[in-house]
Amino acid sequence: MRFEIQAECPVTGARAGVLHTAHGDVETPVFMPVGTQATVKGVLPRDLAEELDAKIILANTYHLYLRPGHELIRQMGGLHRFMAWDRAILTDSGGFQVFSLSDLRRITEEGVLFRSHLNGDAHMFSPESTVDVQLAFGSDIAMVLDECPAWPAEFDLAAEAMRRTVRWARAGFVHYRRRSEETPLNTALFPIVQGSMYKDLRAECAGALAELDADGYAIGGLSVGEPRALSLEMAELTAKLLPVDRPRYVMGVGMPDELPQYVARGIDMMDCVLPSRNARNGYLFTTTGRVVIKQTQYKEDPRPIDDSCPCYTCRNFSRAYLRHLFLAGEITFSTLATLHNLQRYLDRMREIRQAILLGKFPELLKAVSEQVF
Amino acid sequence: MRFEIQAECPVTGARAGVLHTAHGDVETPVFMPVGTQATVKGVLPRDLAEELDAKIILANTYHLYLRPGHELIRQMGGLHRFMAWDRAILTDSGGFQVFSLSDLRRITEEGVLFRSHLNGDAHMFSPESTVDVQLAFGSDIAMVLDECPAWPAEFDLAAEAMRRTVRWARAGFVHYRRRSEETPLNTALFPIVQGSMYKDLRAECAGALAELDADGYAIGGLSVGEPRALSLEMAELTAKLLPVDRPRYVMGVGMPDELPQYVARGIDMMDCVLPSRNARNGYLFTTTGRVVIKQTQYKEDPRPIDDSCPCYTCRNFSRAYLRHLFLAGEITFSTLATLHNLQRYLDRMREIRQAILLGKFPELLKAVSEQVF
Repeated sequence: MRFEIQAECPVTGARAGVLHTAHGDVETPVFMPVGTQATVKGVLPRDLAEELDAKIILANTYHLYLRPGHELIRQMGGLHRFMAWDRAILTDSGGFQVFSLSDLRRITEEGVLFRSHLNGDAHMFSPESTVDVQLAFGSDIAMVLDECPAWPAEFDLAAEAMRRTVRWARAGFVHYRRRSEETPLNTALFPIVQGSMYKDLRAECAGALAELDADGYAIGGLSVGEPRALSLEMAELTAKLLPVDRPRYVMGVGMPDELPQYVARGIDMMDCVLPSRNARNGYLFTTTGRVVIKQTQYKEDPRPIDDSCPCYTCRNFSRAYLRHLFLAGEITFSTLATLHNLQRYLDRMREIRQAILLGKFPELLKAVSEQVF
Repeated sequence: MRFEIQAECPVTGARAGVLHTAHGDVETPVFMPVGTQATVKGVLPRDLAEELDAKIILANTYHLYLRPGHELIRQMGGLHRFMAWDRAILTDSGGFQVFSLSDLRRITEEGVLFRSHLNGDAHMFSPESTVDVQLAFGSDIAMVLDECPAWPAEFDLAAEAMRRTVRWARAGFVHYRRRSEETPLNTALFPIVQGSMYKDLRAECAGALAELDADGYAIGGLSVGEPRALSLEMAELTAKLLPVDRPRYVMGVGMPDELPQYVARGIDMMDCVLPSRNARNGYLFTTTGRVVIKQTQYKEDPRPIDDSCPCYTCRNFSRAYLRHLFLAGEITFSTLATLHNLQRYLDRMREIRQAILLGKFPELLKAVSEQVF
């Protein structure tokens, strides 16, 4: 994978670039829709590609490892073929889900022992095994196993987790490089910067991981409940310590108005379940605010969710119809709402990218900072 | 609405024709996908039209009357506009749902008093009001209110329900013709033949309704639990007593292998929730039998549901992937499975129609009768 920077904002840290992957070019900054279990809930891959023009999606290693299993996915020709998505796929390391979903975790130097949230079976993730799992998927971008402490975390605990994350990253990279000597790989591997909300720890971690000369870097452990200003501060200081010519990915953010904030701090990639999860719950993002579709005010509203949105949903359906589907519990609602919310996120990122290329990003940042969501 | 017969089978009662509606031509025999609450569950109208090429769908008066209400739908420009479906729509009378879903029914000569299954509110359907509701929808084909007794029904009870159905049909038509004198209507009105499984009652009902000179006729009260041979017998004898130049619609059937059986008995139109409901439950129809997707035998099966099926699902996804989505409870499964099952039903009807046009329907009937579902 190669990253090419096309433009940089002279005022902020924003940059526009292209990730060249084995499954097509991904223009950055980019928002990656989340397809946890090898599907973006309610959206067909055809619509994701042709209608929304998403260039890359995220899938979850933890979930797919447990069900249907990476060996099955490998046997079916890899994750792209399995889910009929021929554009780029990024998979996370599974670390975050192990720490948030599973029971009875035991962390050792070798990795993390956990019980499946599905059936209680015991499993082990090591820095090496998570690389192998993601290579079985055939991911375009894989992540190294990390330890993601909850927030707030004591300094000592955060330091311990961060240093283990660094050692795991080194072990993961040794394994990954060995595997790539055996067979040329189309999978890039990103280490993940941890360190909770401690500047020193973030700096130490970024410095240590930079030595790995990875194709890109992720910033993890944000969006775990901390105040927004703190997340932005951590992202900013971390981004500054990472190699300038590599893509930087903040995991798990964010709200529509946060996207340009992260971009302004030198972030190139983001992902979040918010647009799709909120869609299913009836929270629809518009260019001028939020529509909570169940509200009575939309009962007889003939307007689309957002007049200025080009998505299939807004071209064809009224708020009154969508409210009806939502109240009737129709799954078609999830599809229509998700198509819309993802279009908003992807369009927002495309606007941001255009602004950077045209040298107008600071104006855009100022304008969107005044919007309320 | 005009019905044109294009070919008749010289051996059976099968015929091929075209229904000319205000929302396009519908080639018959036709299977109508069910869109109960103004959506075919899990399928976008775009896919229903462009992918499946459905020409007509069914929506339920009872459900839409209760939620979101016919006045809202009228206000939003009618049902076609509301649900973004510009092809033909048939709506039932609401009678069947009143008798199967709602509580505390009280039948009088004026109509039926019932309580909503949603909130217990009292409502009244009369032969006149159900015409008005369907005219508010702007349905291409509407049904007259009928009384559909459960099966088995005592003769006297079945006779009483049938005769009330005839009187309601007359009242409905008087009202409908009055309304069409006020404003030219694009809505055809079909009366419904009842009479349970009694030949004499079916004959009496068909004879009485034939006098109404309707644009088409429905045969109701079948597929209510009776043996299949009995349903076919009732459909056959009823069809023979209805005007030959009008379309005949059997409500609520059936399984894939039943479709040609009904066509052989002179039926032109059918609808059923089976393809879509079975799809959501993981029962997939193929040209050679049924695939119950949760079965372990499909765990590592790289084949599509049906090798010979041209649908989006079969062109792109393996049984292994679909099984994964089903077990993971992903709503995308419902969409992919429904697309497939509906394609099977619509293709089956298109094959039947072609066979009739080419004079080869008896061979097709023989071949499919030997299939097991």
